[in-house]
Amino acid sequence: MTELTQRRIEWDAFAQPAAVEGITAATVHGAQLSAALYVLDAGAHVPEHSHENEEFGQVIAGSFVLEVAGASEELQTGDAFLVPGNVPHAATAGPGGCTLLECYAPPRGAS
Amino acid sequence: MTELTQRRIEWDAFAQPAAVEGITAATVHGAQLSAALYVLDAGAHVPEHSHENEEFGQVIAGSFVLEVAGASEELQTGDAFLVPGNVPHAATAGPGGCTLLECYAPPRGAS
Repeated sequence: MTELTQRRIEWDAFAQPAAVEGITAATVHGAQLSAALYVLDAGAHVPEHSHENEEFGQVIAGSFVLEVAGASEELQTGDAFLVPGNVPHAATAGPGGCTLLECYAPPRGAS
Repeated sequence: MTELTQRRIEWDAFAQPAAVEGITAATVHGAQLSAALYVLDAGAHVPEHSHENEEFGQVIAGSFVLEVAGASEELQTGDAFLVPGNVPHAATAGPGGCTLLECYAPPRGAS
């Protein structure tokens, strides 16, 4: 994990294919949090997983279905959510894809 | 500081006038981070201040000038930034105003 030293973040410089097909992820790490910009193709699916980090998300564009502990809800552009640490969650992008901004605390060393 | 217990965040339910004129702020607190959505009128100015919390920001719409430790830069829709804890910073909204999403870690009890 490389801690970000610049102040302005050029997302394009950090973008790379995610482990999950159909998703591009750009992730930066501060001392106290990580931030990530995800671009999901239509229907891209992030299987259920969990991590100790608390996770905040904001839908920048498009829509996706968020599953938290087995309950599903569709979130659209402008909607936001919070998933506490260690709570299982999954996501599936809507038919128009989804651009999603997320923050994690503490920083996500594994990303 | 009330910790958020719901998972979907309805920003409108948290919106209130900020201490600074011309700014509406909606802030929610998790266990590890806080998130806030700010709507700044054209030219609204946040005077220089600092706090222990690391601060990440994403410009959702419009533009603003960010001053960090005396250096200024204009950020536009889609741009992002990170301000380390205890670093003085200020902000001035552009002529079209600015909608700004921010996350803080650790959570910001004073907001």
